[in-house]
Parts: sequence; structure tokens; C-alpha cells
Amino acid sequence: MASRIEVTPAAKIDDAEALSRIYTPGVADDCRAIADDPAAARRLTARGNSVMVVCDGSAVLGLGDVGPLAALPVLEGKAALYKRFAGIDAWPLCLDTREVPEMVRCIRAVAAGFGGVSLEDIAAPRCFELERRLRESLDVPVFHDDQHGTAVVVLGALLNALRVTGRSPDDTKIVLSGAGAAGTAIVRLLQAAGADQIAVFDSHGVLHPGRDGLAGEKKWLAEHTQPGDPQAGLGQGLDGADVFIGVSAAGLLDEQDVARMADQAIVFALANPDPEIDPDIARRHAAVVATGRSDQPNQINNVLAFPGIFRGLLDGGATDLTVAAQCAAARAIADAVPGARLDAEHIVPDVFDEDLVPAVAQAVMNA
Amino acid sequence: MASRIEVTPAAKIDDAEALSRIYTPGVADDCRAIADDPAAARRLTARGNSVMVVCDGSAVLGLGDVGPLAALPVLEGKAALYKRFAGIDAWPLCLDTREVPEMVRCIRAVAAGFGGVSLEDIAAPRCFELERRLRESLDVPVFHDDQHGTAVVVLGALLNALRVTGRSPDDTKIVLSGAGAAGTAIVRLLQAAGADQIAVFDSHGVLHPGRDGLAGEKKWLAEHTQPGDPQAGLGQGLDGADVFIGVSAAGLLDEQDVARMADQAIVFALANPDPEIDPDIARRHAAVVATGRSDQPNQINNVLAFPGIFRGLLDGGATDLTVAAQCAAARAIADAVPGARLDAEHIVPDVFDEDLVPAVAQAVMNA
Repeated sequence: MASRIEVTPAAKIDDAEALSRIYTPGVADDCRAIADDPAAARRLTARGNSVMVVCDGSAVLGLGDVGPLAALPVLEGKAALYKRFAGIDAWPLCLDTREVPEMVRCIRAVAAGFGGVSLEDIAAPRCFELERRLRESLDVPVFHDDQHGTAVVVLGALLNALRVTGRSPDDTKIVLSGAGAAGTAIVRLLQAAGADQIAVFDSHGVLHPGRDGLAGEKKWLAEHTQPGDPQAGLGQGLDGADVFIGVSAAGLLDEQDVARMADQAIVFALANPDPEIDPDIARRHAAVVATGRSDQPNQINNVLAFPGIFRGLLDGGATDLTVAAQCAAARAIADAVPGARLDAEHIVPDVFDEDLVPAVAQAVMNA
Repeated sequence: MASRIEVTPAAKIDDAEALSRIYTPGVADDCRAIADDPAAARRLTARGNSVMVVCDGSAVLGLGDVGPLAALPVLEGKAALYKRFAGIDAWPLCLDTREVPEMVRCIRAVAAGFGGVSLEDIAAPRCFELERRLRESLDVPVFHDDQHGTAVVVLGALLNALRVTGRSPDDTKIVLSGAGAAGTAIVRLLQAAGADQIAVFDSHGVLHPGRDGLAGEKKWLAEHTQPGDPQAGLGQGLDGADVFIGVSAAGLLDEQDVARMADQAIVFALANPDPEIDPDIARRHAAVVATGRSDQPNQINNVLAFPGIFRGLLDGGATDLTVAAQCAAARAIADAVPGARLDAEHIVPDVFDEDLVPAVAQAVMNA
């Protein structure tokens, strides 16, 4: 496949009159109007409906650091989905620099033409600082799909899994594996939704305040989660846990680990393309199992979230994506599964459900 | 009018299979292929057919320095024409910086995803240095429409005007008014095509080696053109001239000025939106009159050039736009007017002539 996206004129250009309207001298009126009042650009140009999809190529899919050019297929695919599901005009920018101040400078320099920034596949911890500095310096919303998109879909799916198993967030013991961009954002959003019993593991064990060498987001996680026994491994940590959320690595769990969890356990094994545990094995002991795979029930797919979130941000003229808006989006995703359909194998809506994006967008606007 | 362009998916996305092909996990194969061989990006992504249209908002149409955001309508219109006439996917970048090293750094940082750079409405002399430094540092062609596009169309039209009036470039006395981006590029291209009797005027008079305060491109022009009497004004300069080319300001000439020119004179009064002289008045004394206006015969319109030029650059995998390619493009534009149609009021082809872009592209590729 060549490019996944095209740029097309918004109107036919078949005669001299159309030509002079879409280009010179017709454009001069709009140029003048924007020079007089920059806010008019939202109404008169692509700025009102466009998003730059930005990647430095440092953490592309499960492939890792393949560089900015090799990230382009992902960015094009993302742009195609923004249009297909939310009518948003998104264009990919492969960013060939890894220094955050330089990244910010370049994004700022070309930001005027866009209504928002959608960061993609940027490695932690750089993604945290980049997002923070962009939010400080831009007047349009900044969204990082690997953080906010993943967290919103996970919370939405979890709310329904809790419904199916008769739990509430504040009475649920959660073990999360993976302390990168996704894991960190998931913890923050789960806490905002009322979950207060979360232990976080990375490849060296549980994050706890006494652990050496922690900095940045990992330090924050260690200080704001409930590690339990600091010596326990992931298997022990799962003893009696209600929920496992994995955004880590393939094959990390075995059947015994899941068997140790509470009755009616919930397992989200989201490592891509191969989950932390074979979902068929997990289902022997867990009541609800979700993965990132399209050939399994309960696919946790960011396309459930990002189109509606950005549609809401653009339509609402938002300058920022708040935690409240992320929670509202997650609830809208959960509520998009009709009550009659909601069960252990249907905790997320169909991505092709035409009511989904408008519902998420409305929830974001209201928040 | 809202945006003049849209981003659209290149294929339908109506089921889970299409979704996984256009996004994850389908894109992973292409990412891997590009990581292994960056040249594959030309075949596998938008890079093979895309152009960034860049403007700093410093010299927008006849409006002047309106800033990057107010240039966006022009860039969108340009992008729409790139697609309509040459099938090229162009996306606008409004560049919010005026320091050339910073402009180069930002353009370089996001260049990986594009097959070329199309500069637009950037003030002289900054545009010259920017173009030079981008050509040195990028591996894709850099085109500045206000220089190269204008020069190619002017040369193409002039070749036909010379045919109509029975002249050849090396036997033609040319007076050019306007020593900015367009004027400088026109002189260079006319000289490459064999014209060696050119005098250049700016608002202070003729450019000549003895004039104080000249630098950069103006100094080069003063040293490489034929000023004649250094004290002469534009009117005197036109005495006996065969050709006047104006890329300067409205109303600069009056009827007497044109009356002083040689028999069968050629007047290109290209100031926009109002020409250097009313074309109806010019026609009383000149055999061929051209303007930038769509309501007059012989409209000198860059859309005759830039789509075909960039189509040829992309299809040929060119890394640079040579002067030879510009000359070839101009000849292709001239030759696109059928012999039976060529006369004093038809020196340029119809922009909607379907053979034009392929002919220009082929000429650029051959060169």
C-alpha cells in the first residue's frame, strides 16, 4: 500500500471562476479577515478542524525505536482513522529530533495552522515532559494517544467489567504491570475515577517509596499507589487481586498467576501484538478477559476513544484536555454498550457504532 | 468558506479487517520495511507524493506582512491546486519564525514525511537565503513559487510573445521593473534562455554597478545586467525597448512610456491585483500585452507551472530543481499552445488543458 491518506480540495475546481475563488484573488478576503482577527482562522481555514499527528519514531507500536520516517505508516493510519470516524483532517509530522526543547520549538513554529496536537508513539519518559511543555506553550489541546487514549479506553472497558462482575472502583484491588506512558496515564485516570487500591509493577518488581533509582513519573507512582509487600513479585501481588491490567510484555503471566486472583477476576492483557497471557487460558479462571487483539472478544482499541475525544475538543474550542473530560469520555464509551448486550464478552462498544463518536464528543464538550 | 482542503483516507474503512490493515497491526510491516530501507518510504508512504507548502506570512499576495496564520488561506488554496492539477498531496505549514537558521531547523525537523518543499510568499531577501540553505540541507527538491514558478511562466509566455512578434531571446532588449524574489528569478532564467540585454529597475532607478548600498541579489543583478545610462528613469529606459516585464507596483507606467518602446512591443504588466499599466491603454502601442488578471487575455498564472514542475520532480525522484529543468518547463508551457491558436492574445495555454501538466512534468523529468 502507498500512502494511506490523500489531500483533496474541498470543492470542485473546473472553471476559471472556481480557480480564482479557491486561490488568488479569492483568498485575499480571508487573509485580510484573519490578519484583522486571528480568531477568524477557526472559521475560515483548516485550523478549525485539523490536528497534527506527531511522532519522533522512538516507541513505534511494539517495534520500538525505528526512527521518524519508519513511523510514518502509523501516523498516516491514525490520520485516516481521524477522518473516517470523526471527520477530522489530520496530517502526519515525523519529527527528526529527540531533544524536548527543540521538539517544542519545532512544533510551536508550525502549530498555527492546526487546531490541536496528537502525539503518538513517543517513548517515556520523554513523552511526559514533551506533553507538559507543549501544554504550557500552545493555545490548542495536546493529546497523547498512548497515554490519554489508552487510559480512557481502559477505564471505559473497566467500568463495564466492574458492572458485569458487580464491583465498584473504590472497592476493587487492581494490579497494573507496565510503568511507561500508558501505565502511568491509566493509574492517574483510574484514581480520578475513584480506584484507590492500585499496585504498579515494572520489570524490576513493584514500585514502592523505598525503591532506589526512581525518578519522574515512576517516583510519583511509587509514592501514590498501594504497593503492598515491597518484596513480592508480580505473581504474589496478584494474590486475591480483583483486576489485572497489563500494558507490558508478552507471556508475563502463567495460569497459576491468574488462578491466585479473586473470584470473578478481571484480566486486561493488553501487550501488543501478543498479550501477557493467552486469553483462552486466562478465561479458565477469570470472569472477564480483554486484549488488544481484533480476533478476540473485548478488544481494547484506542480508536474507541481518540476520534470522539478530539471531535469534542475541536467542537468545544477547548484549549486543554482535562482529567474530567477524560473520565467523561470513558463513561460515554462504557455507556455506549447497550444494557441488553453488556456481558463478560461485550464490555466495549463496536468501533463502527455510529452513535459512539458523537456520544464521546458530547461528553468531552460537557466536561 | 472554511478549509479549502481535506485529508481523506485512501481506502474505505468499513470493517474490522480494513481497520487492522490501515492501522495496527497492518502498518507494522511497512514500518519494519522502512526501518530496514528508508528508501522504501517513497513507495510505502505519502512521502512519494507529498509536498509541504511553507510560508512565514511575510509577503502574502499583495497584502504584505500579514503573519503566518493569515497566510493559511493562500497555502490551502495552493494545496488544493496541487491536487487538482497534479494529483499531489500538499499540506500547509504556517511557519511562525523569521530567523533563517531557525526556519531551516524547523523545516528540516519535519521534512522526513514530505517528498518536497514548496515555499510561498516569503519576503526577499530572506527567501533567497532560506532557499539556498534548505537546498544544501535537504535531500528533496525545494521550490519557491514566487521565484521559480513565476520565472518559468514568464519565460514560457515570453517565448510565445517573441514567436508572435518574430524575435529571438538573444536579439531582444528587455526592461524589467521589480528586483524582488520574482524579478531576480526571472532575470536568471531569461539569461539561461539566451536573453542578454536586460536592464533592471527598482523603485530607486536602474540597478548598475556604481549604485551605492546594493547587497545580495540586487548587487548580483547590478553586476550581471545591462543598465544603459545609470541616470535614466524607467521611462527613458523603455526608449526603443522590445519587452517590458513588470513585477512591481500598480500604475507605474503611463501611455507615453509604452509609446517610446520599439514597434511590435511586448508588455507584461504583472503587478497584482492592479497592473503597472491599464492593459487597454498598453494595447494602443504594444503588439502583445499580458497581465496577472483572469478577466484579460494572456493571464500569466503560476498554476500553469507549479503543478507540472513538482509532478516531474516527484516522478523523477529529483533531489533538486535545476535551471535546465526550469527552462525545459517554460518551453513545454510555450509549446502547449497549439500553433493554430497562437497569436497576440493567446500566448499561454489554457490552465484546464489536460495535456499541460503531463507535458511540463515530462520536460522536467527529461531535464
